[in-house]
Amino acid sequence: MSELKFSDLVEPVSVDQKTALRVTVLGGGSFGTAMANTAARNGCDTMIWIRDEAAAAEINQTHVNKRYLADFTLESGLKAVTDLETAICNRDIILVAIPSHSFRHVLQQIKPFITSQAVVSLTKGIEAKTFSFMSDIIREELPEVPYGVLSGPNLAKEIMAGQPAGTVIASQSELVRYAVQQALHSALFRVFASDDVHGVELGGALKNIYAVAMGMAAAYKVGENTKSMILTRALAEMSRFAVKLGANPLTFLGLSGVGDLFATCSSPLSRNYQVGFALGSGKTLEQATTELGQTAEGINTIVQVRSRSEELDVYMPITSALYNVIFEGAPPLTIALSLMKNGHRSDVEFVLPHNEV
Amino acid sequence: MSELKFSDLVEPVSVDQKTALRVTVLGGGSFGTAMANTAARNGCDTMIWIRDEAAAAEINQTHVNKRYLADFTLESGLKAVTDLETAICNRDIILVAIPSHSFRHVLQQIKPFITSQAVVSLTKGIEAKTFSFMSDIIREELPEVPYGVLSGPNLAKEIMAGQPAGTVIASQSELVRYAVQQALHSALFRVFASDDVHGVELGGALKNIYAVAMGMAAAYKVGENTKSMILTRALAEMSRFAVKLGANPLTFLGLSGVGDLFATCSSPLSRNYQVGFALGSGKTLEQATTELGQTAEGINTIVQVRSRSEELDVYMPITSALYNVIFEGAPPLTIALSLMKNGHRSDVEFVLPHNEV
Repeated sequence: MSELKFSDLVEPVSVDQKTALRVTVLGGGSFGTAMANTAARNGCDTMIWIRDEAAAAEINQTHVNKRYLADFTLESGLKAVTDLETAICNRDIILVAIPSHSFRHVLQQIKPFITSQAVVSLTKGIEAKTFSFMSDIIREELPEVPYGVLSGPNLAKEIMAGQPAGTVIASQSELVRYAVQQALHSALFRVFASDDVHGVELGGALKNIYAVAMGMAAAYKVGENTKSMILTRALAEMSRFAVKLGANPLTFLGLSGVGDLFATCSSPLSRNYQVGFALGSGKTLEQATTELGQTAEGINTIVQVRSRSEELDVYMPITSALYNVIFEGAPPLTIALSLMKNGHRSDVEFVLPHNEV
Repeated sequence: MSELKFSDLVEPVSVDQKTALRVTVLGGGSFGTAMANTAARNGCDTMIWIRDEAAAAEINQTHVNKRYLADFTLESGLKAVTDLETAICNRDIILVAIPSHSFRHVLQQIKPFITSQAVVSLTKGIEAKTFSFMSDIIREELPEVPYGVLSGPNLAKEIMAGQPAGTVIASQSELVRYAVQQALHSALFRVFASDDVHGVELGGALKNIYAVAMGMAAAYKVGENTKSMILTRALAEMSRFAVKLGANPLTFLGLSGVGDLFATCSSPLSRNYQVGFALGSGKTLEQATTELGQTAEGINTIVQVRSRSEELDVYMPITSALYNVIFEGAPPLTIALSLMKNGHRSDVEFVLPHNEV
């Protein structure tokens, strides 16, 4: 191994503190903390809002987020706060890293303090009851704000360790894209821009479905040919679904699409992969969930997306097959069938669109 | 693991022998043999042409291709022949599975026997001296024939073992696409159609470059974030190059693009990956080649594509960085730099095409 290290790539930061952006991250989980740390390192005036007072105090005293990123020392300029008004008023960018089930409630709480801040979601997922994406929730709760979504293959610990990584900021507003790039871009963290908000957030929201399928396939000891089929058929149905919602299929060629899918499907330790493996080994969902100690997010996503794809009349055979296996007792091999059936049209939906060869 | 097996998916073949296609595969390597076997199983009248008389006789006597697929018994109807006229005359489809350096010469030899047969390349690669793709060579040597190319993540041994797999037949001719699907499609081998000949063959020709990069990255113990960056930046430069040659960028979302790239980059045993790993560990190309006992194909592809991309003025930073590391003594970390540099435009070239955000 060469003696040079990735961190040798880091350029010294020379930011004029007076013009530095004021950034707040809502939520003290691992990815929110990593982004707050990145902004602070870039010279931004950065706060992280955490509801729990003891956790906030600990970060301010020790510069360690012991619960989520115990092995890393945070930038000394990064401040944790618990008061929402302090966190929101007179800030430029609000990065929302709140789980999908609490996302709407937190936006409702910050609404009184919103003036001209940009609001950017860092959360991957779908609101369970409404099937809303995070960008939909922002538009509904804060209809006047400039907004965006950030998504990509971004394991927080790897970012903290200084491994080269990239992500995508998607917004209709060029100003939002530019501001987020200014706040987060560095020599080791590349922030690309897109105007395809739904395309970018759908990559992050749907990928967990296919991690379950990949885990199930692993229980059958499938080879590289079959894994590649799963990956590309997953891309086909994700992009079909996204295009129905107005997204650009080419977005799935990028980091937030195939990049995040690749990272997720290559992680045998993820809960989604493991629940798939257990199901592929003949266990029931109940047995698999008991073993894991909690529900894998991909399972909920399967239920939601299957129902929505039927409403929208989008053909999603892998998702449907997973549903049938998990909830209707079909054999796991149904997944393999879902890859193979239905004619031999173009494998990319949009290349030979009207040609049912 | 469930008791059902993939082979339970196989539908019994009931083909009317009188109308079955007459298929010849030129070349007795592992993939050519696997495709000949697939056609024979589908009921096609199938021949495999092998120059070496002893090898052909052995296949006819033992139904085993001992050199390339020693663990599998071939269909009893599959005939090996050594006479080129017999192999070509009165056939419907000629599948050419000849290495790129002999591809043109074999086409010149079959030219006298060509009447109305379709000629389809199964070969992935670039002719060294001319930078011709296999479809270019077919057009040049046999200008009148209907032609196509077949490419995808298709490890021959996995196909022979009955693991579900898929591939892409690309042709401008709907008849060629249909005939190849009839000959090769089965419950365990799905043949998709595309009309993007250059897009499909470029996936197979260029992927080895990025297997070298992935091996080099592995020497630095990079995480999932960085691997995803390599995969998606590779897709960006492959599709940029292909679009310059008239291909459709969406083709790279499919099996012949990201599917084959994923399979190649996930195979740590491939020569390309291993030479990359040795280079990333500080060895010279000479040392790496000596260890492997032969040159990895990806190294030649890097030289060819770098030169061609400069002629065409296509920006391919990973390929250029690999060239600099391998031939000009740059440190392997140059690859990481190539991922990170040059602004933060859209990560998918064609989403925000003219917007240098």
